[in-house]
Amino acid sequence: MTSYQPAKQDRFSFGLWTVGNPGRDPFGDAVRAPLEPVESVRRLSELGAYGVTFHDDDLIPRGSSAAERDRIVKRFRQALDETGMVVPMITTNLFFHPVFRDGAFTANDPLVRRHAVRKTLDNIDLAAEIGATTFVAWGGREGTDTDAAKDVRTALDRYKEAFDILGAYVLERGYPLRFALEPKANEPRGDMFLPTVGHMLAFIECLDHPELVGVNPEVGHEEMSGLNFHHAVAQAMWAGKLFHIDLNAQKGNRFDQDLRFGSENTKGAFFLVDLLERGGYEGPRHFDAHAYRTEDAQGVWDFAAGCMRTYLILKERAAAFRADPRVAEAMERSGVPKLALPTLAAGESIADLRAETFDPEAPAATGSAYEALDQLAIDHLLGAAG
Amino acid sequence: MTSYQPAKQDRFSFGLWTVGNPGRDPFGDAVRAPLEPVESVRRLSELGAYGVTFHDDDLIPRGSSAAERDRIVKRFRQALDETGMVVPMITTNLFFHPVFRDGAFTANDPLVRRHAVRKTLDNIDLAAEIGATTFVAWGGREGTDTDAAKDVRTALDRYKEAFDILGAYVLERGYPLRFALEPKANEPRGDMFLPTVGHMLAFIECLDHPELVGVNPEVGHEEMSGLNFHHAVAQAMWAGKLFHIDLNAQKGNRFDQDLRFGSENTKGAFFLVDLLERGGYEGPRHFDAHAYRTEDAQGVWDFAAGCMRTYLILKERAAAFRADPRVAEAMERSGVPKLALPTLAAGESIADLRAETFDPEAPAATGSAYEALDQLAIDHLLGAAG
Amino acid sequence: MTSYQPAKQDRFSFGLWTVGNPGRDPFGDAVRAPLEPVESVRRLSELGAYGVTFHDDDLIPRGSSAAERDRIVKRFRQALDETGMVVPMITTNLFFHPVFRDGAFTANDPLVRRHAVRKTLDNIDLAAEIGATTFVAWGGREGTDTDAAKDVRTALDRYKEAFDILGAYVLERGYPLRFALEPKANEPRGDMFLPTVGHMLAFIECLDHPELVGVNPEVGHEEMSGLNFHHAVAQAMWAGKLFHIDLNAQKGNRFDQDLRFGSENTKGAFFLVDLLERGGYEGPRHFDAHAYRTEDAQGVWDFAAGCMRTYLILKERAAAFRADPRVAEAMERSGVPKLALPTLAAGESIADLRAETFDPEAPAATGSAYEALDQLAIDHLLGAAG
Amino acid sequence: MTSYQPAKQDRFSFGLWTVGNPGRDPFGDAVRAPLEPVESVRRLSELGAYGVTFHDDDLIPRGSSAAERDRIVKRFRQALDETGMVVPMITTNLFFHPVFRDGAFTANDPLVRRHAVRKTLDNIDLAAEIGATTFVAWGGREGTDTDAAKDVRTALDRYKEAFDILGAYVLERGYPLRFALEPKANEPRGDMFLPTVGHMLAFIECLDHPELVGVNPEVGHEEMSGLNFHHAVAQAMWAGKLFHIDLNAQKGNRFDQDLRFGSENTKGAFFLVDLLERGGYEGPRHFDAHAYRTEDAQGVWDFAAGCMRTYLILKERAAAFRADPRVAEAMERSGVPKLALPTLAAGESIADLRAETFDPEAPAATGSAYEALDQLAIDHLLGAAG
Repeated sequence: MTSYQPAKQDRFSFGLWTVGNPGRDPFGDAVRAPLEPVESVRRLSELGAYGVTFHDDDLIPRGSSAAERDRIVKRFRQALDETGMVVPMITTNLFFHPVFRDGAFTANDPLVRRHAVRKTLDNIDLAAEIGATTFVAWGGREGTDTDAAKDVRTALDRYKEAFDILGAYVLERGYPLRFALEPKANEPRGDMFLPTVGHMLAFIECLDHPELVGVNPEVGHEEMSGLNFHHAVAQAMWAGKLFHIDLNAQKGNRFDQDLRFGSENTKGAFFLVDLLERGGYEGPRHFDAHAYRTEDAQGVWDFAAGCMRTYLILKERAAAFRADPRVAEAMERSGVPKLALPTLAAGESIADLRAETFDPEAPAATGSAYEALDQLAIDHLLGAAG
Repeated sequence: MTSYQPAKQDRFSFGLWTVGNPGRDPFGDAVRAPLEPVESVRRLSELGAYGVTFHDDDLIPRGSSAAERDRIVKRFRQALDETGMVVPMITTNLFFHPVFRDGAFTANDPLVRRHAVRKTLDNIDLAAEIGATTFVAWGGREGTDTDAAKDVRTALDRYKEAFDILGAYVLERGYPLRFALEPKANEPRGDMFLPTVGHMLAFIECLDHPELVGVNPEVGHEEMSGLNFHHAVAQAMWAGKLFHIDLNAQKGNRFDQDLRFGSENTKGAFFLVDLLERGGYEGPRHFDAHAYRTEDAQGVWDFAAGCMRTYLILKERAAAFRADPRVAEAMERSGVPKLALPTLAAGESIADLRAETFDPEAPAATGSAYEALDQLAIDHLLGAAG
Repeated sequence: MTSYQPAKQDRFSFGLWTVGNPGRDPFGDAVRAPLEPVESVRRLSELGAYGVTFHDDDLIPRGSSAAERDRIVKRFRQALDETGMVVPMITTNLFFHPVFRDGAFTANDPLVRRHAVRKTLDNIDLAAEIGATTFVAWGGREGTDTDAAKDVRTALDRYKEAFDILGAYVLERGYPLRFALEPKANEPRGDMFLPTVGHMLAFIECLDHPELVGVNPEVGHEEMSGLNFHHAVAQAMWAGKLFHIDLNAQKGNRFDQDLRFGSENTKGAFFLVDLLERGGYEGPRHFDAHAYRTEDAQGVWDFAAGCMRTYLILKERAAAFRADPRVAEAMERSGVPKLALPTLAAGESIADLRAETFDPEAPAATGSAYEALDQLAIDHLLGAAG
Repeated sequence: MTSYQPAKQDRFSFGLWTVGNPGRDPFGDAVRAPLEPVESVRRLSELGAYGVTFHDDDLIPRGSSAAERDRIVKRFRQALDETGMVVPMITTNLFFHPVFRDGAFTANDPLVRRHAVRKTLDNIDLAAEIGATTFVAWGGREGTDTDAAKDVRTALDRYKEAFDILGAYVLERGYPLRFALEPKANEPRGDMFLPTVGHMLAFIECLDHPELVGVNPEVGHEEMSGLNFHHAVAQAMWAGKLFHIDLNAQKGNRFDQDLRFGSENTKGAFFLVDLLERGGYEGPRHFDAHAYRTEDAQGVWDFAAGCMRTYLILKERAAAFRADPRVAEAMERSGVPKLALPTLAAGESIADLRAETFDPEAPAATGSAYEALDQLAIDHLLGAAG
């Protein structure tokens, strides 16, 4: 049995806003003091993470002068250099300030939209300066509370326009940066545009530079609609669009919980880790979650350590599942390998296919033996596979 | 006040399986006798519908000989001719027979996949013969109950392969037929592939002939995930992909209810009708719903009449909403027309945009007046706008 | 057509925290300035409300001295007297301050529980002083984020103990005060104890003085679990336990939205108003909702006016529905009046019942005509009943 | 590591309808042949179950003559005797036949209600004859599709009347039988009366003989509303009302899935087993679930074996969690044991409590260390606690 101790090569990263979350919620005040970014870098590095990420405002308070900004960035860079930590991704806060109450890229007021684009352009420059290669965009206020407020098609025009401007800018500057768009169905707005990984993938295909843009799926954002997150990630991979990922946990259809990774829907987390590890995803294992509001500072670091520990346990479990000869045999019995066979054999025509005769009754009577296969998955998940 | 009496030009259509639904459910037996397709055509025509649609097996029982098939089609054609009814769409049943227990186009067994493709090709020929121009595909069993059963990426390879074969066939034959794919998140499978309008739109972009393929969104299928159906339809329209639509009603996140159109989430139905009527959708207003299981034959026709009546009431309400000068004024106050203004003015460069100075505090303090606007929508919905 | 103008006799009340909601949410800062309680009393009175309600801390800031408290209460009392407004209900804030992070009456720390009981006792004195007759208790932090944290049965012991103490105190003092407990399933805690009207009604029966205690159901709190709110209110009425009610709106299974009454699930609101108006509920029609975060001060008053207006529209619609002879006829056809007949006739024995012969086939074939009946409800809801 | 082999003393039972489920669903035909009850008894006994349960119609087909009934019961009794299997519970099918389309005890038609009561009385006699001590009642059709159809309060009058009749009968006969009522929120009806464990517990208190009646909570029935099942079971235990339990699994807010126990929400299942084993529940561990529709006969027995195996794994895991000194230490740190201390010490008065001074700031700053505690639970669940 391994120690499940994270190391840099595991590529675990955390947002400054995750460990820095003060525990404010709709019904309660902040319970934890602000965390210094530099302190977060050091603690996360000690715990075994390899990277940190942030919103512009997490690092550089709104309204900072250019000199302050430079001083902050320099000090942060020093902490990175001292710890060997990297910044694989940065993102823009287009949701906290009241100016974004009606959205940012899709606000009805063009001046607000222009402000949002400018803020993002500035942050793209920072991303390039800090060496980030992924630029996440979550449209926290892009949506509606009443459908009388916006024609959704017009809103999508504006949403596309913003990413076309940003894409053109990145190309013009030659920044080695890709965008990863993050969908969410609701909260804080009643309904948000592009609510799932699917809607976002479809939107990306309509942009001027789809090749620059992928998705940043988040466990809880897809599961709050009751959707299978592992399926969504697989579709993003299949489309070559899994540019980044946000790991956390969620108890189904309810408010956005941002729980410790693996702490709910543990079976879903098992199949997700299995997919990421087998599927060639090379990006950061990024946690976008936070400690329960009951916790103090120590609880925050327990939370962060727990995210990584559970990932490593599940990684071991998934590898054992795939290596177990009983699993291979069960998959054979369930016909799993046959799904990889093309339906139309090489060289076969539609006419050939139609000429075939087939009695549906025999296959109709044959079971798939999925109960036995799923029990093996549960056995491995629970460490009870013997 | 109008009579809300449907007429052919309203383009209302019903599936044979909707009025023919026998009222069978997971906990109970059929309560209604089968309906003769020809009888359904006559009754629907009398009620004011202009079209009927069907699954292959709804019209031609599985196992019918070629002669029986031709006799059935001929008789059905006569009923259409006598009533002036049309068949704008047909679809294939790839879910009822036990042979499809593990899926059709994504079944692990290649023989089942081949059977499913053949059944669909036969039905495409029937669509062409009967004059349908839209071919709906709902993957009722394409999905998983355990995620150990399939690699989702491989399943998407097979799913794509099937539609590539079907698309090639339609092009080869020169049939004037377009495909409309219908997403659903779950039920009957635990998780179905391509669970929402978004996931389906994204998938379509990966096909060999995306131009042939659009979506057939269904109210309840999107709302059972708690998603805003009107937003999904608007995104499909925006992408040029609204090829057909399935109208019904659903009480949120639960089993698939297929309720009478407009009978739940009536405000959502109001904005949906508003969008369809203003948005240039020219296709059928197709009802995919059924009467409560409590109903007998008379209840079925009450149900069908109610679907159309409520659509017409909502159409009138939406038109009055758009024509009301108080609404135009409220929209002005809310800045709704300004969303149509490009964020970057014609000829403006990114550098121009960045040169602008902006104080966020004033717009941050200005409200959007959406409560007043939404109240006007409610007033119109309730016929209380004075 | 009436003007839907509210008047004192309509018994509409609002929480100070509802119109005073500053628009803070998990992803954004406050957008509206605090409202002076006295200003709220005046504005609400002008709009047609008859009452205001509050949490202790809404009126008297935490940490006020006794002299400040008395001055505030006196000034507030003057505003009430000048406007003729009443305070039918008050409630205690046991959730905002970090001391309640693990709950109040069910916190693991006994000192926190004792503090919570004391704060509530003080507030009961204030309720008596201000003339409130209903004392609402919402256990905003009573629950768990991890089920390792508490034995639920022990937590219920403590929850009961708290209400037994409070009940004993009210009896001892002879205050004319009844408690109304308000359930909610989740948010802010992952799972809250006594999550629905049902769980709360059951809990009340286990208290020392159940006769003192009823429920305060809230539309959105029951609908966020996908439950039928109208059914829950009817069960509370049936048990003689509807002591107060919180009116708002919610879009199904998601975060707690507190939307303008009637603005979502309008059909549900129609049947709810019908029940309250026909069912003998004499208490306040209390709105626990707030304006969208997009709104400024004017939007807040639009919101408040809209809550009352929609209630009055629905009241008119429900009365017309009940008065419509076509509805009476449809109900007759559906056998609705027969549900009031006892199953066992007066004087009939079980043996008599068992002696009866019955052929199930005829009733099995008879429909309930509910589609026609429901369409009449929709017609009336939409003001399209002719 | 144990073998997780079930034995009679584990008290595992299955419904005949669970292993006998033919795989029929709203979109598909039966896939499995009917199972002979006697065969099920034998197979379940071999697998390690101690009991079987059934609906009247599962054992004795509707319309059987008295002689046929007796012959069937005799043959079934023989199988029980040969295998040592028991029938701890039986239940009545009041939902499958079309006569119950509008409900049974709450049908508008009194003749249907009387038929339902008679059918249940007959089944109570059978329960007594067969030696069952628990009589489960699931109101599969008690509810509404439109709220115009029934006054809920009147429906509750009828619902109560039915259980009062049945209770009186059991007392009159002196049968050693208790009722266990089973709530469900929806499906097959749009909304069912008494939708959760809470609503049912509250209803029971209004019956003539509440002491005879408890609940039969089902995992998926509570989780399909997104509610915490473990909390509901704990409340039922706290009220002395956990008379029986239905174990299965469910993927959140969607159709009723009846999945293999422990195969979804595995963490919830861990805390449930922990509660049942520690909490003094002595009744059967009854599985109300069925194999995936993909399965053939072998898959059904795999499913049944898996239910029991996962229960035993979780039982071992929960015991290890409780025995782990690190867990005890973590609970101490989290203050868990202090929840058992009364809030008001023995002999303390309310005045004493109020006299205490308290500074909320120190406890407000102290965390609960629940992240560390929950991680220990996850470690034990995953068999990774070292």
